[in-house]
Amino acid sequence: MSNKKIRVGLVGFGTVGAGVADLLLNNADTIRAKTGVDIELATVVDLDTTRPRPVELPAGLLTDDLNALLDDKSIDVGIELVGGTTFAKDLQLKMLAAGKHVVTANKALLAKHGDELYAAARKADKCIAFEASCAGGIPIISAIRTGLAANRINALYGILNGTCNYILTNMTEKGLDFKTALAQAQTKGYAEADPTLDIDGSDSAHKLTILAGLAFGCEITLDDIHIEGIQNVSIEDIRYGQEMGYVLKLLAIGERNGEGRISLRVAPSFVHDEHALARVGGPFNAISVFAHAVGHTMYYGRGAGMMPTASAVVADIIEVALGNSLRVFNGLSLASRAETEPLISNIDDLWSRFYIRLMAKDLPGVFATYGRILGENQISISGALQHEGSGPDDTVPVVITTHPTKQKNMSAALAALGQLDVVSGAPVCLRIADIPEDCDA
Amino acid sequence: MSNKKIRVGLVGFGTVGAGVADLLLNNADTIRAKTGVDIELATVVDLDTTRPRPVELPAGLLTDDLNALLDDKSIDVGIELVGGTTFAKDLQLKMLAAGKHVVTANKALLAKHGDELYAAARKADKCIAFEASCAGGIPIISAIRTGLAANRINALYGILNGTCNYILTNMTEKGLDFKTALAQAQTKGYAEADPTLDIDGSDSAHKLTILAGLAFGCEITLDDIHIEGIQNVSIEDIRYGQEMGYVLKLLAIGERNGEGRISLRVAPSFVHDEHALARVGGPFNAISVFAHAVGHTMYYGRGAGMMPTASAVVADIIEVALGNSLRVFNGLSLASRAETEPLISNIDDLWSRFYIRLMAKDLPGVFATYGRILGENQISISGALQHEGSGPDDTVPVVITTHPTKQKNMSAALAALGQLDVVSGAPVCLRIADIPEDCDA
Repeated sequence: MSNKKIRVGLVGFGTVGAGVADLLLNNADTIRAKTGVDIELATVVDLDTTRPRPVELPAGLLTDDLNALLDDKSIDVGIELVGGTTFAKDLQLKMLAAGKHVVTANKALLAKHGDELYAAARKADKCIAFEASCAGGIPIISAIRTGLAANRINALYGILNGTCNYILTNMTEKGLDFKTALAQAQTKGYAEADPTLDIDGSDSAHKLTILAGLAFGCEITLDDIHIEGIQNVSIEDIRYGQEMGYVLKLLAIGERNGEGRISLRVAPSFVHDEHALARVGGPFNAISVFAHAVGHTMYYGRGAGMMPTASAVVADIIEVALGNSLRVFNGLSLASRAETEPLISNIDDLWSRFYIRLMAKDLPGVFATYGRILGENQISISGALQHEGSGPDDTVPVVITTHPTKQKNMSAALAALGQLDVVSGAPVCLRIADIPEDCDA
Repeated sequence: MSNKKIRVGLVGFGTVGAGVADLLLNNADTIRAKTGVDIELATVVDLDTTRPRPVELPAGLLTDDLNALLDDKSIDVGIELVGGTTFAKDLQLKMLAAGKHVVTANKALLAKHGDELYAAARKADKCIAFEASCAGGIPIISAIRTGLAANRINALYGILNGTCNYILTNMTEKGLDFKTALAQAQTKGYAEADPTLDIDGSDSAHKLTILAGLAFGCEITLDDIHIEGIQNVSIEDIRYGQEMGYVLKLLAIGERNGEGRISLRVAPSFVHDEHALARVGGPFNAISVFAHAVGHTMYYGRGAGMMPTASAVVADIIEVALGNSLRVFNGLSLASRAETEPLISNIDDLWSRFYIRLMAKDLPGVFATYGRILGENQISISGALQHEGSGPDDTVPVVITTHPTKQKNMSAALAALGQLDVVSGAPVCLRIADIPEDCDA
């Protein structure tokens, strides 16, 4: 059988770009033997053509002239690895207009402008392939699109940001406070100098937008997602959670609720310490998917980094070369919002279990007051923890976990609790994610 | 965009067959919306046309006449779910000769006669799709074939048999002996009345044949795999292992060793209790894959059962309909043995850590004798465990774990230890699988 030949041009010769070049230049034999695809790296475009990179390109391959890619009709695929949402968007549109398929790892761009880009690709009869945009080297998009295609997907729970998971793992295992753990993550290269998009939950939300759209078969926008980051997580709450059998993870959650609506949120969440997701440590990512026929499947691996992300980019190039990506892209209902308005559940209507911590004066009747306020808001206590001895200012931490209740009930109770004279500061409130190990299958 | 239409015929209306029919009849809308594929179940063939099944077929669909499928030119795909390796092989060859693609869950058949069947498919310009043959609903074949296509795969470690995992989990968690745990698995429907193929490791070896062939890009035969089952596993060794921080799993292992050879084995193996694979409980399956670019990825889910397996069968039908399966099948180097002789490592040359248990008389100098015999065979002791008090016949169990050594050194040492007068019975020997959580990526 003759090999499929494909010529690709890469824009953005940074860390991941260097990884992609490395795989294409140094692993071509393996790829050809496995897949029958011959990939030729035709050009690499970057404004900086002099900085040393960890991979050596053949002479003449690196250029700062984007037209070397756009004007070359023999280049079939443009790989966008510049990041950001302005130049990158323009670049992808230009690549599509120039008759090239697009391969990208740009989750922020797809989360914000996917609708417009997918429409442009359809119009050009090209595809946009984006396996590398979510969970790095884990083939989660392929799993949802094809492996689970026969299923109605009911829920997904993802640890989608390696930076946050590294920080939370270090806080949990070494007892570090947030600031120290963040600084260590930066030293180790797991966090950017400006880590805002990671720690405030935005990056996880970008990925959830993409994954939930595929899983639930409708367009999801960032506005549909309730987002809380990890920047206010305290080591105290991680410790109390551990005592009660929980591990704190930044979870991206998409669920169909019982009323035909989809609930979407990113938030630090307690997971039972026996659950597989609780064991996902350091910079690793994992996604648990619950689907009506197959039940629970989970996918685990490195969510970022030079070679894992490059692995996903090159997998997409191979799929584009084989014609599979275009076929799947055309088959997928990445319909516009206007066609299939998804029913997004409001966060106020979320049913969840909760963990709350109050710093309160240790006086007679205080606990009864808490119980009364929770009860008045239809909240039933599941567990409670108060250690003997006083905290600063004669206050003691009181930890309460609840049975499932509505978010709006909890919000009302928190407001009432926060106004009590005996309570100092705002109560801490975190959700407990009761993720099944299993489900009907 | 117009939908792809495909007509399929199913042979074997048993448990999985009923699940496939259920998905095709009752989930067609979801499949069409997600993938643009219209699958029509044209005929269902089974010798037994009267037994009640958990899914109701439209009148006239069920027949005992195989020619209703073979002679119908409008049927594009034949689904073989009869199992076994004689009639099923003939059936698949007939389907291919009749111009139909084949979708199958038959791991035993592919492990034994894959070479002949793949050649027949190539000749007919059709494909054989077999996602359902390994690990049930987990899309592991798709992950290895496409998700990790850019990688050189270095190792895979799989829990591939749900029956064995259910038995070992129950022994570990409830302290049951093997016979009781097997009986419970049979009562629960997780083990067949004749469980031989599961518990003797054959079923895992069939699956390893398929997965390792794809992962390492060469034909693997059953003869290449060293196979040990779980039928002789005792609760004592599970308990001692737990004390030392290990969980016993039936692992199917394929590894490239440092010398360009491939090592393949199925055996009960100790896994560190902190490793993700140690947490895979009950009837679940999981596969850890180590690849040069992506590092460690793991895939988890139900390895058997009506709907999980049906999920994989229908995913394959969709991929066949989209044309992806044929393209990937043709691209894959499922070359014959003659073309690419893999270098299979002999089990004697395996480097591994070991767990051994001796039942020995508690006399002065006995431990020194063990140490001497191990030392004479270049085996270094890593850990030891001897509880105070005597066992039956005044013997005490002595447990020793070793640093890595060659299998042939261990075999020689075991022979020498077994001949000692103070040792009663043959020493128990199990391997410790030091699976990394991570690897260079």
